[in-house]
Amino acid sequence: MASVPVSGGRFVIIGGGSLVGSATAAELLDAGAAEVRLFDNFSMGAETAVAHLRDNPRLSVVRGDVMRMADLLAAMEGMDGALPLAAYMTLNMDRDPWGGLDVNIRGVQNALEAASARGVKKVVFASSNAVYGYGPGIKGDLIETTPFFSEGAPPAAILYGATKIIGEQLCRTYTKKHGLPHVVLRYSTVYGERQHHRAANALFIIETLEKLAKGEPPEVFGDGSETKHFVYVGDLARANRMAFESAASDVAVNCSGPAPITTKELVELVTELAGGGPAPRFVGETPGKVRLTSGGAFRIAHEKAHAAIGWKPEVDMREGLGRLIRWLREGNA
Amino acid sequence: MASVPVSGGRFVIIGGGSLVGSATAAELLDAGAAEVRLFDNFSMGAETAVAHLRDNPRLSVVRGDVMRMADLLAAMEGMDGALPLAAYMTLNMDRDPWGGLDVNIRGVQNALEAASARGVKKVVFASSNAVYGYGPGIKGDLIETTPFFSEGAPPAAILYGATKIIGEQLCRTYTKKHGLPHVVLRYSTVYGERQHHRAANALFIIETLEKLAKGEPPEVFGDGSETKHFVYVGDLARANRMAFESAASDVAVNCSGPAPITTKELVELVTELAGGGPAPRFVGETPGKVRLTSGGAFRIAHEKAHAAIGWKPEVDMREGLGRLIRWLREGNA
Repeated sequence: MASVPVSGGRFVIIGGGSLVGSATAAELLDAGAAEVRLFDNFSMGAETAVAHLRDNPRLSVVRGDVMRMADLLAAMEGMDGALPLAAYMTLNMDRDPWGGLDVNIRGVQNALEAASARGVKKVVFASSNAVYGYGPGIKGDLIETTPFFSEGAPPAAILYGATKIIGEQLCRTYTKKHGLPHVVLRYSTVYGERQHHRAANALFIIETLEKLAKGEPPEVFGDGSETKHFVYVGDLARANRMAFESAASDVAVNCSGPAPITTKELVELVTELAGGGPAPRFVGETPGKVRLTSGGAFRIAHEKAHAAIGWKPEVDMREGLGRLIRWLREGNA
Repeated sequence: MASVPVSGGRFVIIGGGSLVGSATAAELLDAGAAEVRLFDNFSMGAETAVAHLRDNPRLSVVRGDVMRMADLLAAMEGMDGALPLAAYMTLNMDRDPWGGLDVNIRGVQNALEAASARGVKKVVFASSNAVYGYGPGIKGDLIETTPFFSEGAPPAAILYGATKIIGEQLCRTYTKKHGLPHVVLRYSTVYGERQHHRAANALFIIETLEKLAKGEPPEVFGDGSETKHFVYVGDLARANRMAFESAASDVAVNCSGPAPITTKELVELVTELAGGGPAPRFVGETPGKVRLTSGGAFRIAHEKAHAAIGWKPEVDMREGLGRLIRWLREGNA
């Protein structure tokens, strides 16, 4: 039985000083967790991302690094569940493939080894729709058996996707060899309050808002027909909680928002929610710049998540973008 | 211009104490290389694999480890070409995923960094048809744009394939960022003289011969209709040489034998070449045992290799197996 009750349970979030980490901490605390530990080296994560939670006596922040087993063994002690989130995404992988491969592969392996050694009861692993890759092969419904397409993609994007594939398989290895239950959640592009500036596609929302704030036309790359499929951070936090609580183990499921959106629709929606502004400017791709746009029209199917852990997304783009814009206007950045 | 003439050139083979390493050393020496260095930690490679070459004054054996940059920086000094071969394959990856991820990812990254630092003129990277993955998705012609299928495959097989995908992308990164030319050769299953006992599918040939030598029926897993596509080691050695000599860079091509073969045909051919023996016994899969058989009928296309580096395979299974059997009967193992 792989269910780990959240009420009264103890959880560590590796890479906790992050968009998803802080939202998940709040979700677990709201659901009655006895303790939530946020483990981060704060090289990318920010103390400010968790500042709003720091007064909660059930929350602690532990400074540590996924490359140091001693840090992880200490952080995993007494924990019922662990959520490894720490990762380099594509933009950072492009700048520093050494660090990215360390953190995304050995960092995950270290976290699993420490969880296993400390008798943690379940791991929920933050994977990504990047395991389906990039390029013209990506079209139609992306389901959990879709292979990894890489032809024509930039190296850093392929490296990122491959590290997530490896992370998932390390989870399977620890379940099979060491009896450590796990659920893999393949997040689609996350957005929402406390959003950072590191994810290529989510960053696009911020860039659009910044253009509009200056009275300039937002930029759309290509003809704007490309699909993006976002997921609201609060929905993901709920998915993480439900993955711990569910009896599921040794399964990988997509977590995406209610529906995909084209780049053009996204810019128009952001413009409307921001109170209007100039029409978008259609521009060509910047050569050599890593910008993760897929080639065609796709939808990341989340039906399997409902079957496995009972989750489905609740917050659509209009609602979620509205929350993000309100949060930004309250003086946050 | 990425061509590196072999005649008069200096080459280092990382993981040189191996089936492909020793055959490639012989090929490069025969083609007039001024120096061939075999770099190996001999944890898997064997001194015996290169014993037949050791009297050649143009050959040197360097004991070193791909996890130690100092070893690699010394080995790359003065070299025109480098061939990183050192890798854990699936069986070893299953036993030791920590070592496997170190060697197959960080080891390749170290070799590329050292090659770049020492001004090596070209890298030929030993990748694998494992970049197309495993399972029912693998059918028809596997060409260089085929995605990576992993659904239903054991973790170690997926880890192995993903590390080769990462190795290829690291090569692309060093070409793009550091101007180090490279050619990726995606080897299919290698067999031939000096064959070792580590590759699951090639091992099957040896196991068949051992059964026949004892007068026992060889074993066929499943109904024997599964495809395997081998390549003879001498053909691969030639491909490595031609990849150095060609003007090609930043390209990945398959290197497979003239034609695929089914398991049943393979066992029958080995039985015939071994001088006859009992008919094969069809057995079920051993549960939990990692044995890399693909689901269906496929062919690994090698036409792109001909276009890029002028190579095509010359030795068919009858000829290659005959050579392997003669070598074994001469008392080698």
